[in-house]
Amino acid sequence: MATSNRVIVYGGRGGLGNVIVEHFKGKSWWVCSVDINPNDAADENVLVDPNLSWTDQEGLVCKNVAQHLQENKVEAIINMAGGWAGGSANSPDFIKNADLMWKQSVWSSTISAALAAKHLKSGGCLVLPGAKPALEGTAGMMGYGMAKAAVHQLTKSLGDKKSGLPENSVALALLPITLDTPMNRKWMPKADTSTWTSLEFVADLLHGWAGSQEGRPPTGSLVQLVTKDSQTRLVCE
Amino acid sequence: MATSNRVIVYGGRGGLGNVIVEHFKGKSWWVCSVDINPNDAADENVLVDPNLSWTDQEGLVCKNVAQHLQENKVEAIINMAGGWAGGSANSPDFIKNADLMWKQSVWSSTISAALAAKHLKSGGCLVLPGAKPALEGTAGMMGYGMAKAAVHQLTKSLGDKKSGLPENSVALALLPITLDTPMNRKWMPKADTSTWTSLEFVADLLHGWAGSQEGRPPTGSLVQLVTKDSQTRLVCE
Repeated sequence: MATSNRVIVYGGRGGLGNVIVEHFKGKSWWVCSVDINPNDAADENVLVDPNLSWTDQEGLVCKNVAQHLQENKVEAIINMAGGWAGGSANSPDFIKNADLMWKQSVWSSTISAALAAKHLKSGGCLVLPGAKPALEGTAGMMGYGMAKAAVHQLTKSLGDKKSGLPENSVALALLPITLDTPMNRKWMPKADTSTWTSLEFVADLLHGWAGSQEGRPPTGSLVQLVTKDSQTRLVCE
Repeated sequence: MATSNRVIVYGGRGGLGNVIVEHFKGKSWWVCSVDINPNDAADENVLVDPNLSWTDQEGLVCKNVAQHLQENKVEAIINMAGGWAGGSANSPDFIKNADLMWKQSVWSSTISAALAAKHLKSGGCLVLPGAKPALEGTAGMMGYGMAKAAVHQLTKSLGDKKSGLPENSVALALLPITLDTPMNRKWMPKADTSTWTSLEFVADLLHGWAGSQEGRPPTGSLVQLVTKDSQTRLVCE
């Protein structure tokens, strides 16, 4: 482990998380997965108990990550946790789903930021899970939009020099539109998948940011993944 | 009560809430205060138990408001709940304070939105508590910024025709910079108070929006209160 590059993947057992863990393992990185479920491909696993409070989750995750890392620092922390749930103001599930969205996207992002403050290398990279639709109103998925808007604003805060992150590190939010996952193929069988972004593209992009300071967008950027004719370009703001 | 104008003031026992309740009472409105503590100036009080979960708070507040209103609708729902707490990514209190900010600003705003879907008149007015600093990063107060950014994005969602709010109603976020409160005068004794916004100005503005559809900003607007030389102007986006 002494000379490996190291990455923490929060949500490392999700659809995208799996692909990211495998991609980094394929490049011989040391990978710590943080998730509700273990990822056997990772070198280490930190399990999240979804029944704990926000602060208790933070305490337990930080303690267990610190034990695995000892004095080592990581090149990157990548959070791709989070799901999707709908709900307008008049939906019976509006607040129940908003609660779930908040826990999945924002709890994981703040704990990732706390981990970055402790364990990221100088010049390291923190990536959080945004969403392009939340740049505007999202009437049909209000809780989802709020959670992602909070992650976007957190990213801007983390991009400030007084954020508490190590020097020269960058904080970025990744804003996909639609990812090409088995689940999306199942639920949207007639969609034009040539506008969907492949998970391998995302994993390769993240590996590039994690491994080198060159080519990264400026810290605090919201990085949209815009895919057309199966080609993805980055739009930063 | 049959012919009164009616307003629900969420956070009706806070510094700004007190002034708003008194202002509407002075104009002979029926006022229901929703707060942790009762406001004796209000016609009715619904007490919030801060130890309940988000969904349980919603359930209890909605049940009690419905009992007070019976079949009546309200002209306006005004949420001015919420406090302030700091914290960067490396602060020990980062997540504890983020949790508090979320509960104060976002739980109250979503429950206000749920109340609006049920009890607001057609052409009614819902106002939520934003904050101008959260339009950018807020490195020294990350939890506060996230919560307010979520309220801003919720406001945009509520401004959509498919939000679930009654027809022709408007949802607005009020974005003060610094309010002229006793607490702010105490903590910032040397500040230039000519750039602070008076609570009476805010109460009068809200009363105007509540009582008449004319002169309201477009639904979904984030309304900044910019005060200079003790004169406040509105900047909408």
